[in-house]
Amino acid sequence: MKNKIKKITFIGTGAWASALATVVLRNNYQVSMYGINEKEIEDINQGYNRKYFGNKMFNNRQNLTATNSLEEALKDTDLIVLAVPSEFIKDTLKAISQVLKYKKVNLVNVAKGIENNSKKFFSEFIEWKFGKNLKNLATLIGPSFAQEVFEENLTMINVVGKNEEYLQLLLHVFNNPYFRLVINKNEKGSELFAALKNVLAIGIGIMTYKHPEKNPQSALLSVGVKEIYQIYKFLNPDSKDDIGFELAGIGDIFLTCSSTKSRNFSFGLHIAELGLKPALEQENKTIEGYNTAKILDKIIKENDLNVPFLKSIIDVLFYNKSPLMLLDFVNEYN
Amino acid sequence: MKNKIKKITFIGTGAWASALATVVLRNNYQVSMYGINEKEIEDINQGYNRKYFGNKMFNNRQNLTATNSLEEALKDTDLIVLAVPSEFIKDTLKAISQVLKYKKVNLVNVAKGIENNSKKFFSEFIEWKFGKNLKNLATLIGPSFAQEVFEENLTMINVVGKNEEYLQLLLHVFNNPYFRLVINKNEKGSELFAALKNVLAIGIGIMTYKHPEKNPQSALLSVGVKEIYQIYKFLNPDSKDDIGFELAGIGDIFLTCSSTKSRNFSFGLHIAELGLKPALEQENKTIEGYNTAKILDKIIKENDLNVPFLKSIIDVLFYNKSPLMLLDFVNEYN
Repeated sequence: MKNKIKKITFIGTGAWASALATVVLRNNYQVSMYGINEKEIEDINQGYNRKYFGNKMFNNRQNLTATNSLEEALKDTDLIVLAVPSEFIKDTLKAISQVLKYKKVNLVNVAKGIENNSKKFFSEFIEWKFGKNLKNLATLIGPSFAQEVFEENLTMINVVGKNEEYLQLLLHVFNNPYFRLVINKNEKGSELFAALKNVLAIGIGIMTYKHPEKNPQSALLSVGVKEIYQIYKFLNPDSKDDIGFELAGIGDIFLTCSSTKSRNFSFGLHIAELGLKPALEQENKTIEGYNTAKILDKIIKENDLNVPFLKSIIDVLFYNKSPLMLLDFVNEYN
Repeated sequence: MKNKIKKITFIGTGAWASALATVVLRNNYQVSMYGINEKEIEDINQGYNRKYFGNKMFNNRQNLTATNSLEEALKDTDLIVLAVPSEFIKDTLKAISQVLKYKKVNLVNVAKGIENNSKKFFSEFIEWKFGKNLKNLATLIGPSFAQEVFEENLTMINVVGKNEEYLQLLLHVFNNPYFRLVINKNEKGSELFAALKNVLAIGIGIMTYKHPEKNPQSALLSVGVKEIYQIYKFLNPDSKDDIGFELAGIGDIFLTCSSTKSRNFSFGLHIAELGLKPALEQENKTIEGYNTAKILDKIIKENDLNVPFLKSIIDVLFYNKSPLMLLDFVNEYN
């Protein structure tokens, strides 16, 4: 696939959209960012996203424009990066579709895990809702705090999709000395790990309140990853690849489960500190792991899976188990 | 196997010997510790190991004695925990053998990885050198800072060996509400991961000096674990188990690669800070990962394995590559 890409459109003006935008700006692409917040748009047009990144500027800001006009953002675009909060994806896809009409586009999705209403993985959901406009689709999954990317710290993540040629093209677009995509063709496996790791992160957050030490952290992280892998193997018995060891697997899990910067992890900490109800009430955004845990609960029960740590996290979230009892299963663990 | 164990002998008076001793003391066993340092022996007989644990006392100290007499320590013992630094294991086994004569004993080994002269895993080495005195053998491997165990923080590690009945017996001896052994029968796999993770820890230490952020840490940890897994699969192509996800696998790797308390990790930091030669000179103890890297170098070359991160670490350690260039392989990574 020859790289004919000149203009890249980012749907969203959040931290991750901005971090990826400055990566491709550095690589000399034209960038248009579509947003709905006038203040953010103005800020970006001055070369900043101060809400997230203080006074650090975008690279090559002369090639960057932000707009609240979807038509303008999509005009003559060669690649769309969909980077809105996951609850807005459905409506956003519809709006994009209305602008594109019958035109097909290359899409990069950064929403990970499971769409809450349809219970489909986002790659499936996008193919379902946006199929008629879709030339190619890929998803970015891996250990990546937006701020570290914006500050040009070394970052390696997976680019996940079915079409190897398209994935190779994206390597040309995104890669530079500090940002590196690594191809991973296991779409379902990557999205499953990405979804379930958020449930695990809540659990690690809960236990960290009482057990902040390294021994319990390392042990329970390892126990949790093994359970996620067991679920993956149950759902994909013939899979021979080592998805668990990918950047989208333990790479992302290392990051998500070991930092208060992760929303699911912090949510777990709050549950242990305040109790479940107050913790839920003080959240103003969707906690992905909480929604995923509901779906996981069903999968575990329907298939009678033996995953005591994940089950215990679910019991705290939905069945009135005390957060302080989260690790009671350890006494019978083997 | 009925639990007839009353007296447990620890060979060694170091941090890990003491931490495990206080675990079984809490479980009401008689403990004898053998050491060579008079001051440490006196300290332990007063109920402390102040060198490592300050004023925190051993549990049930009335059941604890330390001695510099191997005969006394081994008298009427039911279980021996071998916890001397790995370079002393050979001579220590010979000394124990001389005392035991033809008596066979149950042994727990805590030395992980590869014996430097014979290039055998420690379990093989012990069977080779101590076979005539060996009733049963198990090895403890998993995420465990001794201090956290001594302070009774929740710790879960693998007990690794061939004889399930013996492993079950050890569960009875060691397990309590804060310390938990988990059976793992993949002896070779566990020891391979335990050995290679020390090489990885040196590499993560080196890169941390220049890249202390979470994105690169998580990415390279994930890249390194995948390479260790690839080597494991190459050496054990028929293995079907998920050793990588065990406490002895990523559990231990999480711990070792993310803390300056780990000697291999700190050694890596020093290499980046001071240069290889000064870093080596200031070490007064064996760096296990350094010795293992020599063996790994041979394995990689003989089998032409594609493990660029581990190879780059080896190049820094033995082939004059600048520590600052450690991650140059990332530019071609895929």
